[in-house]
Amino acid sequence: MSVNALQVPVDRKPEETAKAVEILKTRFNERCQTSAAIREQHGHTTTWLPNQMPDAVVFAHTTEEVSEAVKVCADLGVPIIAFGAGSSLEGHVNAPGGGVCIDLSQMNEILSVNPEDLDCVVQAGVTRNQINEYIRDTGLFFPIDPGADASLGGMAATRASGTNAVRYGTMKDVVLGLTVVMADGSIVKTGGRAKKSSAGYDLTRLMIGSEGTLGIITELTIRLFGLPEAISAATAAFPDVESACNAVILTIQSGLPIARIEMMDELQVSAVNAYSKLSLKEAPTLIVEFHGSENGVKEQVELFGEIAGEFGAEDFQWAVRPEERTKLWEARHNAYWAGRGLRPGWDGLSTDVCVPISMLAECVVDTQKDIAENGLVAPIVGHVGDGNFHVLALCDSSDAAQREATEAFVSRLNKRAIAMGGTCTGEHGVGQGKMRYMRLEHGNGVDVMAAIKRSLDPQNIMNPGKVVAIEG
Amino acid sequence: MSVNALQVPVDRKPEETAKAVEILKTRFNERCQTSAAIREQHGHTTTWLPNQMPDAVVFAHTTEEVSEAVKVCADLGVPIIAFGAGSSLEGHVNAPGGGVCIDLSQMNEILSVNPEDLDCVVQAGVTRNQINEYIRDTGLFFPIDPGADASLGGMAATRASGTNAVRYGTMKDVVLGLTVVMADGSIVKTGGRAKKSSAGYDLTRLMIGSEGTLGIITELTIRLFGLPEAISAATAAFPDVESACNAVILTIQSGLPIARIEMMDELQVSAVNAYSKLSLKEAPTLIVEFHGSENGVKEQVELFGEIAGEFGAEDFQWAVRPEERTKLWEARHNAYWAGRGLRPGWDGLSTDVCVPISMLAECVVDTQKDIAENGLVAPIVGHVGDGNFHVLALCDSSDAAQREATEAFVSRLNKRAIAMGGTCTGEHGVGQGKMRYMRLEHGNGVDVMAAIKRSLDPQNIMNPGKVVAIEG
Repeated sequence: MSVNALQVPVDRKPEETAKAVEILKTRFNERCQTSAAIREQHGHTTTWLPNQMPDAVVFAHTTEEVSEAVKVCADLGVPIIAFGAGSSLEGHVNAPGGGVCIDLSQMNEILSVNPEDLDCVVQAGVTRNQINEYIRDTGLFFPIDPGADASLGGMAATRASGTNAVRYGTMKDVVLGLTVVMADGSIVKTGGRAKKSSAGYDLTRLMIGSEGTLGIITELTIRLFGLPEAISAATAAFPDVESACNAVILTIQSGLPIARIEMMDELQVSAVNAYSKLSLKEAPTLIVEFHGSENGVKEQVELFGEIAGEFGAEDFQWAVRPEERTKLWEARHNAYWAGRGLRPGWDGLSTDVCVPISMLAECVVDTQKDIAENGLVAPIVGHVGDGNFHVLALCDSSDAAQREATEAFVSRLNKRAIAMGGTCTGEHGVGQGKMRYMRLEHGNGVDVMAAIKRSLDPQNIMNPGKVVAIEG
Repeated sequence: MSVNALQVPVDRKPEETAKAVEILKTRFNERCQTSAAIREQHGHTTTWLPNQMPDAVVFAHTTEEVSEAVKVCADLGVPIIAFGAGSSLEGHVNAPGGGVCIDLSQMNEILSVNPEDLDCVVQAGVTRNQINEYIRDTGLFFPIDPGADASLGGMAATRASGTNAVRYGTMKDVVLGLTVVMADGSIVKTGGRAKKSSAGYDLTRLMIGSEGTLGIITELTIRLFGLPEAISAATAAFPDVESACNAVILTIQSGLPIARIEMMDELQVSAVNAYSKLSLKEAPTLIVEFHGSENGVKEQVELFGEIAGEFGAEDFQWAVRPEERTKLWEARHNAYWAGRGLRPGWDGLSTDVCVPISMLAECVVDTQKDIAENGLVAPIVGHVGDGNFHVLALCDSSDAAQREATEAFVSRLNKRAIAMGGTCTGEHGVGQGKMRYMRLEHGNGVDVMAAIKRSLDPQNIMNPGKVVAIEG
């Protein structure tokens, strides 16, 4: 299957689109852009899929403006694609049927911080680093950290997680409520500020992970967490990937409340050393972090040390000072770019899967074997505490055979994870790239998703050609 | 507004229903019952709303049998009401349009326990006590504990929580996947066994809290947790409800990882003393529990002691031995029946609300004032760590004026919680009793819920007249 076949076609409506763009230009003036450069920037971004540009980009400032823009498009049946930081990896922001991209990055106001309730309300364009800098003095932090400095709206839309998820959960766990512009332009508020509720269908969780196909998230109420009294981080090298995975499995099974437990395989470590100027031993490596009271962290460190020792860990390097930790985690967050640096000029097919923790070692070992057997260059890095790992398959796309082999590998990896009771994506989302695995993973659950999509977006104008395919 | 007005009418279809019952009798023989006694048992149960009996009760044993029964009803457009343990409190299992109740209590098989992945797969009729007894030797436990020994299917359907939610979350947080029979009888599997996934719409979370109005949950994959190394519980009496609430607020804001923090007001304590033969001081009381390592629990106990002391706590009674703790929590779980015991023969209007933690003291104090001003008998008990509390308004229903005053109080309480940014139900669910607050709480979010309901149940046969009203 060629890569283009991964992109579900969506009918273009050139006349209606032109009309919508004209109306939006009049309404938004210089905040409605149609230059090729800007349109291209709003297409595939970091995705390995071919770029499909929108016809115009509207830079919205308020929920009401998003609603206005959606109404214009809805009246004319024109596609609408929400755009945050553009850091998604599966073609989420491509515009296969053209249409209007609504860029929310200028909706970056922090509307309220409520330390007494451990929550805050933000516009969708606020990024994870922005909120953490803003609340630095409150003793609170927001834990969800995908590699990129993504927008919180985009992170909710893709159900993002990151290195802290093993302790603090994913976006589904930390969002209390949303403001959403629906396909008809109506503005809906989901959830609230109570920590729990049983009052009706969970629209918040339905919108989280819907990738802009059911509505556009414009505001979020998110949970904040107290900064731990003590933090300690370390790297540990293991004799092989299997031992590293088994140490992770035992750590999780022991109920150790570890805050972060990440794995890099040998190739990823060498890439990170080169990119981030570290000198880690080039071996399968776990990066761990412990949060708690001084004594609690000490206990956790001891227990983890025992477990890791059982599996042959050596070369423990502790990062206790904040600046050491920051350097380590920055290096981890730049793993994607470090990986890309292994083969400058090549494409990077970034894919992620997630399996039950008991299957982690087997899945990673089988995947490494697959990589070796096919002569691929593909570092592995992952949030292994959740059974989630990423493979960045590097590929010289000008070499058709290599491209085909790489895509075939990605396909086998996803099917392997699903066969092990796992999922084709732990955190990147479906976008265009993972649509073909949806039926395999969900069976007729896909029909339920399509029914919901049809009911909330009968014209199929909200980010069409993503997540589930329906007729427009 | 009279209580009957809370029950949305649903058209009866006597002929079609009779036909469906006939087919089901032939298929299920003695497992399809139509006696008045059994039908009545499957009506309101512990609810204060008038009983509305189904026309027949089918005792299903497998997902396939549920599917068969649903198909019979779907073909004839006859209502289907799922029934677990019958411990819901807002008329969830009433049959306002008659129809067929599907009793899942005999679907009580534990299908697999996977200690290595900290999860298990159960049929929907398995109860929370049953699973905990079954896994006792594994060192694991399932934390969600509504007062009753509810079925796990019913707990998922109502998004139940309980005393451990402050630490372990609610049903939305501990369910990994579901098997659901949809309105057309098709069987859908949602989620999976991976700890997280971004693969499409979150059908699991959509079904959780949908109260049988979108489909019938027949199997669940649920997360299990390691039994803590050390547990300590205590009660502490406070000079007034406000002080107790403020101690809770500060505890939560401090990030203390408390496992349970429950409040009983003075009246509830006296009811519990009488019912469970305890001798607690009759004052506003917190019941707390700490989980962790020996040292971790010690630290938590000290920190909580300091906080509670600041708010005038006295009469600390520690329950360190398992049997003491069991006695204490059994008393807490029987709070409903203890409360009912204050006025034997009277009805109990049990209602729950949840507010942002910062509003807890104000909401409870205002509610107590309201109770006093109206001469009501209404003990308060709650999972206050989540801002969630229950009021059991006792009422001699033969006294129309008292009944009216009690209902007016419940209405004010729900509106008060919503006005404070909270919800009309933290964990009981909507059923019939809370439908009238849905628009106030969710605005046009109710229309989105109705659109989803229509798309997945176009005939309106799945537990009609609950959660959201749509035309059949």
